[in-house]
Amino acid sequence: MAADVDRQILEDLRIDRAKLIPVLHNIATRLRIDSIRSTSEAGSGHPTTCCSAAEIVAALFFAEMRFDPQHPRDPHNDRFVLSKGHAAPILYSAWAEAGAFDRSELLKLRHIDSDLEGHPTPRLPFVDVATGSLGQGLCAGLGLALNARRIGSSYRTYVLMGDGESTEGSVWEAAELADFYALDNLCAITDVNRLGQSRPTLWQHDMEAFAMRWRAFGWQALVVDGHDLNHLLIAFENARQTRGRPSIILARTLKGRGVSFLENLDGWHGKPLKQGDELSRAIAELEAQLDRRALDVSGAQLVRKPEGVRAEAGPGRLEGRSQQEPQAMPPPAYKIGDKVATREAYGEALVKLGARDPRIVVLDADVKNSTFSEKFEKAFGDRFYQCFITEQAMLGMAMGFASRGAIPFPWTFACFLTRAADFIRMTAISRLDVKLCGSHAGLSIGEDGPSQMGLEDLALARAQPNFTVLYPCDGVSAERLVEAAIHRRGPVYIRTSRPKTRVIYAADETFEVGGSKVLSESRSDVATVVAAGITVYEALAASDDLRTRGVSIRIIDAYSVQPVDRATLRRAAAETAGRIITVEDHYAAGGLGDAVAEALAADGVTVTRLGVREIPRSGKPEELLDRFGISARHIVETVLRIVPQAATRKTSVQG
Amino acid sequence: MAADVDRQILEDLRIDRAKLIPVLHNIATRLRIDSIRSTSEAGSGHPTTCCSAAEIVAALFFAEMRFDPQHPRDPHNDRFVLSKGHAAPILYSAWAEAGAFDRSELLKLRHIDSDLEGHPTPRLPFVDVATGSLGQGLCAGLGLALNARRIGSSYRTYVLMGDGESTEGSVWEAAELADFYALDNLCAITDVNRLGQSRPTLWQHDMEAFAMRWRAFGWQALVVDGHDLNHLLIAFENARQTRGRPSIILARTLKGRGVSFLENLDGWHGKPLKQGDELSRAIAELEAQLDRRALDVSGAQLVRKPEGVRAEAGPGRLEGRSQQEPQAMPPPAYKIGDKVATREAYGEALVKLGARDPRIVVLDADVKNSTFSEKFEKAFGDRFYQCFITEQAMLGMAMGFASRGAIPFPWTFACFLTRAADFIRMTAISRLDVKLCGSHAGLSIGEDGPSQMGLEDLALARAQPNFTVLYPCDGVSAERLVEAAIHRRGPVYIRTSRPKTRVIYAADETFEVGGSKVLSESRSDVATVVAAGITVYEALAASDDLRTRGVSIRIIDAYSVQPVDRATLRRAAAETAGRIITVEDHYAAGGLGDAVAEALAADGVTVTRLGVREIPRSGKPEELLDRFGISARHIVETVLRIVPQAATRKTSVQG
Repeated sequence: MAADVDRQILEDLRIDRAKLIPVLHNIATRLRIDSIRSTSEAGSGHPTTCCSAAEIVAALFFAEMRFDPQHPRDPHNDRFVLSKGHAAPILYSAWAEAGAFDRSELLKLRHIDSDLEGHPTPRLPFVDVATGSLGQGLCAGLGLALNARRIGSSYRTYVLMGDGESTEGSVWEAAELADFYALDNLCAITDVNRLGQSRPTLWQHDMEAFAMRWRAFGWQALVVDGHDLNHLLIAFENARQTRGRPSIILARTLKGRGVSFLENLDGWHGKPLKQGDELSRAIAELEAQLDRRALDVSGAQLVRKPEGVRAEAGPGRLEGRSQQEPQAMPPPAYKIGDKVATREAYGEALVKLGARDPRIVVLDADVKNSTFSEKFEKAFGDRFYQCFITEQAMLGMAMGFASRGAIPFPWTFACFLTRAADFIRMTAISRLDVKLCGSHAGLSIGEDGPSQMGLEDLALARAQPNFTVLYPCDGVSAERLVEAAIHRRGPVYIRTSRPKTRVIYAADETFEVGGSKVLSESRSDVATVVAAGITVYEALAASDDLRTRGVSIRIIDAYSVQPVDRATLRRAAAETAGRIITVEDHYAAGGLGDAVAEALAADGVTVTRLGVREIPRSGKPEELLDRFGISARHIVETVLRIVPQAATRKTSVQG
Repeated sequence: MAADVDRQILEDLRIDRAKLIPVLHNIATRLRIDSIRSTSEAGSGHPTTCCSAAEIVAALFFAEMRFDPQHPRDPHNDRFVLSKGHAAPILYSAWAEAGAFDRSELLKLRHIDSDLEGHPTPRLPFVDVATGSLGQGLCAGLGLALNARRIGSSYRTYVLMGDGESTEGSVWEAAELADFYALDNLCAITDVNRLGQSRPTLWQHDMEAFAMRWRAFGWQALVVDGHDLNHLLIAFENARQTRGRPSIILARTLKGRGVSFLENLDGWHGKPLKQGDELSRAIAELEAQLDRRALDVSGAQLVRKPEGVRAEAGPGRLEGRSQQEPQAMPPPAYKIGDKVATREAYGEALVKLGARDPRIVVLDADVKNSTFSEKFEKAFGDRFYQCFITEQAMLGMAMGFASRGAIPFPWTFACFLTRAADFIRMTAISRLDVKLCGSHAGLSIGEDGPSQMGLEDLALARAQPNFTVLYPCDGVSAERLVEAAIHRRGPVYIRTSRPKTRVIYAADETFEVGGSKVLSESRSDVATVVAAGITVYEALAASDDLRTRGVSIRIIDAYSVQPVDRATLRRAAAETAGRIITVEDHYAAGGLGDAVAEALAADGVTVTRLGVREIPRSGKPEELLDRFGISARHIVETVLRIVPQAATRKTSVQG
């Protein structure tokens, strides 16, 4: 029947609220039924938080948003982020209602072979960023909304949050930046259903408590009855027509709405209804709420695609990345022997790459003068995003950008990236092309002390199985590895250092992800030292010292920490009697030492790890490297210890 | 001379503002001089951010706060947290002025052998929590202020923040909780000096932008001229007399105040003055500002100790921890073969321990019904702190509590602890007795999907060299390890699981930190499987399967992941032909496998690691363990692969 509704009736319906609202009401009811059914079938999940959001979702998808359900990644589709990711069933139901897939799929919710996971992930083409860690959706929304400006599109971004997650600090970081960037193409909605997981939420149904906070943060805040479709439609329209600031719709709702024995009751968070009588009663109650007088129109018929020809979309508008790879970067300008900090070379490289690849955007957390991202700002101010001191929102923004084909480089001190560790985790789950940079890593920052030393950043990044981890030691490798990061799919972490280091590579040297460089090699090498970043220079100094003692060692610059260069390591192990020493400006666990150890485990080769094994303190960089066991002296001592005959060797060996 | 000022004059001075203010003015000027001198001497540091805060610090330390400089850890001292930790020089100068140590020490700032580090750490007795990662101080302040209530003390807590850090979400999390707990004994101060590191701050000198945000979050906000001592004193008094809500003093200041060529100028963040002319000019300018007509009174003379006898301080008031250890816990009530989830046993244990040790406090982030911390709430509601969904503030609160002798157990899902990774990092630097629990770890949570699976939590905790990491597999070990955590100095992370598991230990079994349990052992063991938590049961199942094939393996429950039981591992390696297999419900990097591998490296033993090597998905727990390579089947296959002759063995072997 629904198929018979003609075009004109649909057009009329869209503007005649008296007719539209009963149709939306029935859609909302179907969304509730789906959510309850699918979670009961799965035996787990969150039906009640879906029920509170049913009118919001129905109004958004079938009266407010413009998108093409058959092409969910169309660059001009409005974006929808379900920040309250545990309401996944209603998201899936909405897309089924819109015709993106068959409704029968919904009953595969949470099955191991279905992409309808417990919380949304980008395995589904209509999901931009994985959600389920609360408080992240609005941060991603920043990137999505800014991306519309970047590509010159008029698409709008909608983020549905829960009231419980509104206490997460990251939400307020996003609020600040949306205000700063005057994102009038961003509309957030809070489903204020009063009940958290274990108790009433902090502000419960005090709508004024929500509104005054958002207004203080510069947003237009509209308080509505979240079950009144007319209220919702008016509010969405108001938000859409508001210029110069973001809007939030604060929707007062009831958790479990529509089912008498769930509605507004505690104790039902995350509990599906039991199959059988409990489920049947709920479905019967909901079916009785269907308005039989409403026009028989499906969501799929109501969906509106993006308006005809809009502004031509800018670079990076395609899914994932554009087919057209950027021009190769000219060789670095450094000469062997120059002194340059990798953090500075990294900044230089991004300027060069930025000129060649318009997809690159840079995000800073008020450290641009230390990280040298200010070079990029100066060259490409319109692709530089200041995030002030909000590392979480910065990462979330990067996730949003990356999900729409930009290549974001969020950038701060390595230690402060830990502030965004949960966003890094969700970036990995989302498989996004985010290229993180942590500068000022390790003891080698010196006097500022441990709070400013990233000493666990490699562990954090390496733990994520799909993260690439790169760690250049000089200007040339820094430039080349930034370029490599762009060509590498998925998340990449690049670690840079504060001190100036000597350029050791010729400008035409090439650097592959998964490779390494053998810096010193001879047939008489008695051991291999695997270093990266700043410790490469300690290894070189140790080698010089050992050579005077007639001892030759092999040195490997393991600039690719993940994946690590197993082939080269194996060869070195085989050729240096299985004596492998790693040395890293990082805590001993989780970094280079563990990476090398695992790579060699199958060959029965073990690794002697030099790393930082206690909480460090302030001091000069060279004092700290020595005090905490990773200086040239320690490398020499370790070689002499594990190669006992080396300590007394007399004859000189060719290096 | 100062020493000659008699008691009465001091008493009069304290109440006669006309006389007091010139004295405070001179102190503020001395604080500026010290800060500039010490950073110039160090050759690095942040003089200008000290200059903006000089009047605030002078007024606080020498007219507002009550503390004993000779006993900085006195339980009734007012607390001061320098959240803008880069202003460390002025903190040190204030304590020198108060007489805590000799002023000449200040010139050792940032030396490797001085505790006057670049950013404050608790190596100094007057520092409760390390700062320098912005936005954490107010979170710690929550714990300090709540601790006053806990021990029945009237001490007040002051937190000095920067304007730049006010954008950090964690600040707003703390703001929410301070409002919720109506912390009128907490007074924050924001030094609004307009300039961030690389550019003007988000809200610059728009004092109303600050005030309306804090007021919206329920605080009393007082806007003052931060260089007007009279304004400051009035505001502090107002805050002190306000009941029922926290106060914030928003102090409009100038960065570099007092030195003509620094004041309110960009480009001076984190730059010391050059020794010589530049320094001399600055010092001369400041010295000229000293009020020669002011009474010659030192800060040490002005300092006021806590008032006589206050309420008797409650438990845990001593430094670090009380000498009196709690009574031993009675044995767990579980019998071998019972089924209980470790998360539940953990909750049970804390109730038992809570009855015996009044220092224990529990912090929840709205998951108490899943983690079973609600059991503790029910038993000891006055030591249970609801933090809603603010993991960062929760950890900060725990840091504050721990710094004052309580033993806090902050508690959420393992995956959501990553939200607080930077606070975990600072907990390690602060060496605090925080006992973290991450529940619902790993694939074994099942259908909720990857966003809810903590799979990098061991890497995160292990990276910190002073963290103890414990991972029980059954109810008995869970109870005992919670008890062990209390007796262990420093930060502890305990990982628990969602599924019910079979009790395998007798109630009188003992569990040492650094120990392990050999669950299966025979002379004919061909390999050792090292498991922990949920994978212990996979190992046991694998052992049963292998036994039917005539293959015997050793099984070790490595419940102490850090430190790991090297002696037992070495013995097992020696006795099972060096064949060690680790299996963990965690990503392959940074967890149990790496810990075991490092422990055995010196013996030349390598490890075959079974861990999760890709981003997982939703599914049933047992399906996921199998799909992602950590089930009994994979253990069996691995044993048969690395022990080739085992695959064809026929004879039965005793287990």
